[in-house]
Amino acid sequence: MNELEKFETLCRRAQEIKYLGSIGALLSWDQQTKLPAKGGEYRAEQLTFLAGEMHRCSTDPVYGELLNDLSTTELAQDPNSDRGATILELKHRFEKNSKLPKRLVQELARATSLAQQVWVEARKEDDFSKFAPSLKQIFDLKREEAEAVGYDDTPYDVLLDDFEPGATTKEVAVVLDALTRELVPLINAVRDADFEPDISILRRNYPVEAQSEFGRLASAAIGFDFERGRLDTTNHPFCSEMGPDDIRITTRYDEAFFNSSFFGTLHEAGHGIYEQGLRADHYGLPPGSYCSLGIHESQSRLWENLVGRSRSFWDRFFPQAQTFFPGALQHVAKPDFFAAINDVRPSLIRVEADEATYNLHIVIRFELEKAVMQGELETDDLPAAWNAKYQEFLGIEPESDANGVMQDIHWSAGLIGYFSTYSLGNLYASQFFEAAQAELGDLDDLFADGEFGVLKDWLNQNVHRRGACYRSKLLSETVCGQPLSHEPLMRHLRTKLSAIYGF
Amino acid sequence: MNELEKFETLCRRAQEIKYLGSIGALLSWDQQTKLPAKGGEYRAEQLTFLAGEMHRCSTDPVYGELLNDLSTTELAQDPNSDRGATILELKHRFEKNSKLPKRLVQELARATSLAQQVWVEARKEDDFSKFAPSLKQIFDLKREEAEAVGYDDTPYDVLLDDFEPGATTKEVAVVLDALTRELVPLINAVRDADFEPDISILRRNYPVEAQSEFGRLASAAIGFDFERGRLDTTNHPFCSEMGPDDIRITTRYDEAFFNSSFFGTLHEAGHGIYEQGLRADHYGLPPGSYCSLGIHESQSRLWENLVGRSRSFWDRFFPQAQTFFPGALQHVAKPDFFAAINDVRPSLIRVEADEATYNLHIVIRFELEKAVMQGELETDDLPAAWNAKYQEFLGIEPESDANGVMQDIHWSAGLIGYFSTYSLGNLYASQFFEAAQAELGDLDDLFADGEFGVLKDWLNQNVHRRGACYRSKLLSETVCGQPLSHEPLMRHLRTKLSAIYGF
Repeated sequence: MNELEKFETLCRRAQEIKYLGSIGALLSWDQQTKLPAKGGEYRAEQLTFLAGEMHRCSTDPVYGELLNDLSTTELAQDPNSDRGATILELKHRFEKNSKLPKRLVQELARATSLAQQVWVEARKEDDFSKFAPSLKQIFDLKREEAEAVGYDDTPYDVLLDDFEPGATTKEVAVVLDALTRELVPLINAVRDADFEPDISILRRNYPVEAQSEFGRLASAAIGFDFERGRLDTTNHPFCSEMGPDDIRITTRYDEAFFNSSFFGTLHEAGHGIYEQGLRADHYGLPPGSYCSLGIHESQSRLWENLVGRSRSFWDRFFPQAQTFFPGALQHVAKPDFFAAINDVRPSLIRVEADEATYNLHIVIRFELEKAVMQGELETDDLPAAWNAKYQEFLGIEPESDANGVMQDIHWSAGLIGYFSTYSLGNLYASQFFEAAQAELGDLDDLFADGEFGVLKDWLNQNVHRRGACYRSKLLSETVCGQPLSHEPLMRHLRTKLSAIYGF
Repeated sequence: MNELEKFETLCRRAQEIKYLGSIGALLSWDQQTKLPAKGGEYRAEQLTFLAGEMHRCSTDPVYGELLNDLSTTELAQDPNSDRGATILELKHRFEKNSKLPKRLVQELARATSLAQQVWVEARKEDDFSKFAPSLKQIFDLKREEAEAVGYDDTPYDVLLDDFEPGATTKEVAVVLDALTRELVPLINAVRDADFEPDISILRRNYPVEAQSEFGRLASAAIGFDFERGRLDTTNHPFCSEMGPDDIRITTRYDEAFFNSSFFGTLHEAGHGIYEQGLRADHYGLPPGSYCSLGIHESQSRLWENLVGRSRSFWDRFFPQAQTFFPGALQHVAKPDFFAAINDVRPSLIRVEADEATYNLHIVIRFELEKAVMQGELETDDLPAAWNAKYQEFLGIEPESDANGVMQDIHWSAGLIGYFSTYSLGNLYASQFFEAAQAELGDLDDLFADGEFGVLKDWLNQNVHRRGACYRSKLLSETVCGQPLSHEPLMRHLRTKLSAIYGF
């Protein structure tokens, strides 16, 4: 085989691994949306089998040899070219995967598939003790994984790299620290302001059917393509891709709260727009894959917050919202609605937190996960530690574990090291938005006209179509001309909140 | 390895093949219920990949050697024991699969996944020419398959054996012939009777929501377990299993017609009850698998027709039906309703045909398929041949190909050789029902009390729990003490129809 033939063989192999991955994604989506009550056990077996097959294929020595051979050729010379990134990113994954024994991979697949079902039950019954054994098992397995891969500084680095390739725990801690230092005074300024939004208008009756229609309308308006995706209802909202033209988002409805489903849907639609904007001709390969979860989250946050919570967005959509929810919004003035959806105050549930305090929820999880992974905290002590951290950072404490330590699906799904990417997403979102505005001019007039395509095209071009050819830090430097920073987010929050709260 | 260790290895291998099969079932179910409009192309690729993997695993020489070794041991001595059937049935499949080149298997998977989508479009537009190339391709591939496997008498034997292992085209032709000879005079007697049911009462407004609830209620009552299954809406109703506790049935609703969804749901629930009645501890192995499609269909037909269209069933459910559909049924008398749902008259759509004429729809398809497979008819000539056969057997002709040759999904899905199992199902259903009544006594009082568990338990014990340890003919001989025969069905039809129509 010459180099190009080898490269093509490599791509075919990677695409086969992706078949397994995308099939696994469907099995998981189905588990969360459609699986009959008693179907969980066999589903866990199917997923365990698939994980084993994926591991077998993605650690096949022949595949590794191909990667080794190609990594020294000219094709791999530019690491940010399509071919270079394909070879080098796949090599990085191969090397990491090859350090994991198949047994561990399968144990993790089985344990997490089953633990998600345990979590649902335990959370429903608000009984942490029911979830505790699964949680311990998963953290133990993840520690075993970190040891198998190896690390210089902390086992947490190994897990973080799965979600944010190339990022280190130390770097993330530095930027979260800087953010927290500026965020806390801003949140205090809001608390001390004379103005308080009337958030009761968001807690009126919002019929589910109308919420669903309005959410679909808005997500289609910002660019989510329903011919290449769908929207369903789940306990915990997510976006999942199971093919280049099959991107599925989910939401949950609360008849007595507007934000939950609306901003959740915009958020997941933002993830979906990213996936739909990747290059399909590189599907299953790094140039056609998302860059990192931080960048993924930047796309959902950008549409949810920087667009969806902007004044101009509601210039467009508030009259329609009044038509969809006459009972709740008929006599509400637009500025009051705008202030309410931008209300900032400490709360217990991360996914419903406002743009500012949200990041403190992340800091809490980041610190707790690190502590458990580094052996400084037992999983059984997580509820108490959780409550103490909420008191420390937000000045409030959950009345139940269901609304406390058990609120997120992540740990049950083995997604440890994941949370900080949510805050990285907030930071990158503001950086991208500033860069887009610098290039495209003020976007507010466009939003007020319901024109979101210009921004979407810009993101397609600058972020989506680059896939995973750039690691996140380099992508942000290339697109925004500056490294990862908390400043654009702080600028955005200060400008918006000082205008609303008058300080 | 000693014999028992070999046997356990064999079982593990078969269960791995079943992982792939059950995952494929989910992909197909999802394709028909949830897949976004543009997701079809990649779904076809995923299914093609899975078909290739299944073929690789199920033709692995090491697996074949295990089967060969075991087939001469004492474990295989009794072909109807759990172990004997496991070895011998798996060996039969292995030998058949091993004759098929992987290329052909994958081409069929791709062609049928894509053709189903073409069929949906072509049928919607009533444009046979759009479907014709796919149809020709599929019949060509199936002929190639038959040639690869080899046959004594007709290529159709090879296909029939996939659905009804051990049955031959000749045998089926003989029994369908005998059935037709007695059925046509009976249908004529109905036509010439003085009485005609008022079927307009079934064509009133039946709100979809109420149909869905009533259908769920009735299928749960006869024994379908919704904790181990679900019911969804599709174009073409089906039952699919993707795990021992994950049996999914589908139906379609017509607001202006009662029968379509109600009897369709009972029918699919019957399939589901069979699957749920298989032994889970043999899941993926012959003792925990269905016997044949004829036996499968006997279970759906038994619940749909012998139970669901019986007088005693409606003694129980008619008052409830009146509550669900007051607009349509409030002023209808039970005997009139009963006569209407048992109305016999020639019609165009197989799935909506009555118990008697239904079998003529099957004879037509059986003859046409055989003719194409034997090279006596071109696929392009199928519409004309179809219409001529409907004229010959039923005295009517479809006004469109959508309601004629394109009405069934089967050919687009590569299910050639499948149709006759529907009539075999009708025959076996009556045989089982007679045997159950002989053993349990008259069932009508039980049905009128809403007690269906006695019959379900009998079927569990006599049919379901035997899995595929008996081939269909032997199963019917064992359970009913007589070979496959058209007489029980004819007895049932004559008794019921002469009472309703008064001849």
